[in-house]
Amino acid sequence: MLLTDSRDIYRQSECIRRQITTARLRSRTSSCLDGSVMASSLISRQFAFSLQKNLRLSAPGNIVSKAAPKTQVEFDYDGPSMKTSVPGPRSEELTKQLGHIQNVGAINFFCNYEESRGNYLVDVDGNRMLDIYTQISSIPIGYTLVNRPALGILPPENFPEKLTESLVSVAPSGMTRVQTMACGSCSNENAYKAMFIWYRYEMFASSGIVSLTSLFVSQSPGCPELSILSFMGGFHGRTMGCLATTHSKAIHKLDVPSFDWPIAPFPRLQYPLEEFTRENAQEEARCLEEVEDLIVKWRQKGKPVAGVVIEPIQAEGGDNHASSDFFRGLRDIARKHGCAFHVDEVQTGGGTTGKMWAHEHWGMEDPADIVSFSKKLLTGGYYHKDEFQADKPYRIFNTWMGDPSKNLILSEVLNVIRRENLLEEVTALGRC
Amino acid sequence: MLLTDSRDIYRQSECIRRQITTARLRSRTSSCLDGSVMASSLISRQFAFSLQKNLRLSAPGNIVSKAAPKTQVEFDYDGPSMKTSVPGPRSEELTKQLGHIQNVGAINFFCNYEESRGNYLVDVDGNRMLDIYTQISSIPIGYTLVNRPALGILPPENFPEKLTESLVSVAPSGMTRVQTMACGSCSNENAYKAMFIWYRYEMFASSGIVSLTSLFVSQSPGCPELSILSFMGGFHGRTMGCLATTHSKAIHKLDVPSFDWPIAPFPRLQYPLEEFTRENAQEEARCLEEVEDLIVKWRQKGKPVAGVVIEPIQAEGGDNHASSDFFRGLRDIARKHGCAFHVDEVQTGGGTTGKMWAHEHWGMEDPADIVSFSKKLLTGGYYHKDEFQADKPYRIFNTWMGDPSKNLILSEVLNVIRRENLLEEVTALGRC
Repeated sequence: MLLTDSRDIYRQSECIRRQITTARLRSRTSSCLDGSVMASSLISRQFAFSLQKNLRLSAPGNIVSKAAPKTQVEFDYDGPSMKTSVPGPRSEELTKQLGHIQNVGAINFFCNYEESRGNYLVDVDGNRMLDIYTQISSIPIGYTLVNRPALGILPPENFPEKLTESLVSVAPSGMTRVQTMACGSCSNENAYKAMFIWYRYEMFASSGIVSLTSLFVSQSPGCPELSILSFMGGFHGRTMGCLATTHSKAIHKLDVPSFDWPIAPFPRLQYPLEEFTRENAQEEARCLEEVEDLIVKWRQKGKPVAGVVIEPIQAEGGDNHASSDFFRGLRDIARKHGCAFHVDEVQTGGGTTGKMWAHEHWGMEDPADIVSFSKKLLTGGYYHKDEFQADKPYRIFNTWMGDPSKNLILSEVLNVIRRENLLEEVTALGRC
Repeated sequence: MLLTDSRDIYRQSECIRRQITTARLRSRTSSCLDGSVMASSLISRQFAFSLQKNLRLSAPGNIVSKAAPKTQVEFDYDGPSMKTSVPGPRSEELTKQLGHIQNVGAINFFCNYEESRGNYLVDVDGNRMLDIYTQISSIPIGYTLVNRPALGILPPENFPEKLTESLVSVAPSGMTRVQTMACGSCSNENAYKAMFIWYRYEMFASSGIVSLTSLFVSQSPGCPELSILSFMGGFHGRTMGCLATTHSKAIHKLDVPSFDWPIAPFPRLQYPLEEFTRENAQEEARCLEEVEDLIVKWRQKGKPVAGVVIEPIQAEGGDNHASSDFFRGLRDIARKHGCAFHVDEVQTGGGTTGKMWAHEHWGMEDPADIVSFSKKLLTGGYYHKDEFQADKPYRIFNTWMGDPSKNLILSEVLNVIRRENLLEEVTALGRC
């Protein structure tokens, strides 16, 4: 029994099937399929109790559940059991809810991970299915008390609620959509992809008209020569896309191939600010002019700038600040030239500037198209405007898409920040 | 008081300092510095208990500690307290232990996260320090019952032991070193970087002699035109470096700029295998010949192949297998041309083929230079030979470097696999 009829899943299971050659499906002792062979009756009671005792974790899907976890005995399922069509009504309702926050095109259904055991995955409509897909092959020995779901396809029941309580509750101005990722680099990598996809869609109204061959060999027009404009001194991560926009320390980039993307100067302000008003205004104007020149130049080169990425305060690259006027000017230039504007708040987000997001200090209604985060938000990810959601599922995707247990902890952290008025506290102490 | 005298940390704290302009260090009510302002006395007792109750997680550093967590009251530290020089003797001992597994050049000291509270970080030698670095700005409200350490600089005390029990205990042949990462894509991105760094080191005996300017602007010679050879149908992830080697489905690559790297054909075998012995041998020979041609061609193009990456079984790209002879031949070609050989076991690792690593089926003593993993191993990362450890710290680096709680769960999973003889079970069921 397959979980869904998707071709991906079929291929996946086909692969595993051949891998272990002639395996036969067995009803109670479990099949030889992928993780399943290590699950089901093979999950010993001792292991379940040992995990429960040592880790004191319940399933991430229901980590705050008030119900005491049932014992392994009650979960000795002896076969599938279907109650509704799949996805059932509860899954459809939750998919609709999550659709307000994320692309849900890849969601199969929502799961009840607390009820899932061995190779049986239970959905939120009470359907119990033999799972040969094992969360895109990421569950090593079947469902136990500790599970990490593949959030993009099989999220836990409380995922929309926990996202709403945590990340959505502190979304930057103009953004109601958020995509979680595992770390800061992955967040920026995927934000860049979202900008490339958006840019091509804007250019061609549809991004579908390209040669398939060019795609398989990583060449234009399928893989176009687009660029991201970044700033000297900027730090956006160390994976290869991010690293092409990182210019903080030479050692980070040494020996790693990169892209021919434009790099603008970040203003070098003189202090004390009140003594250098004119000089600093000139410096910021010079940098903005250079940005505009680079955008034009790279367009002429045939490598148009799809997006501009900047940190509100450069940290890794020194300690570089710019005025709100500079950022407002930059945002206008990006808009004028049809470039997306990505504010990287991996370092500055989370409240240390007295606002949840440092860019709030600019006082703009439409500060950015994309805001990425990680670190103090405990999970990585990025917020984006509606039009930056990829047109199809699986374009912004990976196996885990973050970790739901981090959203849960974040939601407690945000409660503390609110209850203790920590943003006001930072502002007051910062003034004293 | 700074944790260490590193310039990075100084800059970091400098940045935060200016961010909140004129903040003054206060002894008991905590400073305004970064996370600190949200920590210390501001961590309410209620929050500590609420987290304890809801999440039932202890600090990852000591998640299996048998000692009952102390209450918040006992942790109301009123100042720093130094017992030894930093790093102290216990930290030095653990650094030495971890040095057998990883690059430890960036480690400041080892931490006791269970004893750390508010803005006070306690190390394994009992030194209590005011923490203004907050795990590279990734602790939102100071130390609580749930902490996620920046593993590359401030690992928990049990990190070497947990790595040894989990990942090191199942290291592939010839590899004793392992680098953890948050997900599969990050694992491959960093494995590619390790191959580039190694390749340049092999070429030039030292990778230090390049123009700094070229590095800051992402150009050669600092950022050289090196390449990774991959295979049609291969899947290695979706971040930009990985995506350049992914050729499974067109939609994954659409609209995203890529690198001009060589792509070889993966054998297309005919089934049943016993009826097509000659044809399949010819097909594999053709593919190997093409690999060698591409390596030569790309060297002539000035984009030499630093590494070859391949999956033991292609899954995302269909269900494509090749014989052990093919892989042995490929490994020899890589060696002959001075290219690193990277086996991507993100999908195939973890036991589903009846061996912990699918490449063990090839029966080679020296199967690979790098083996990457994620999914069923619960944490991402890659194993590597000694010579693939970067010469300097911070070259393979990010804030979290994975998540130690996953190593802990993995170690329990491996216990089950051993206790229940699951690898033998897979093999037996696969034959029946």
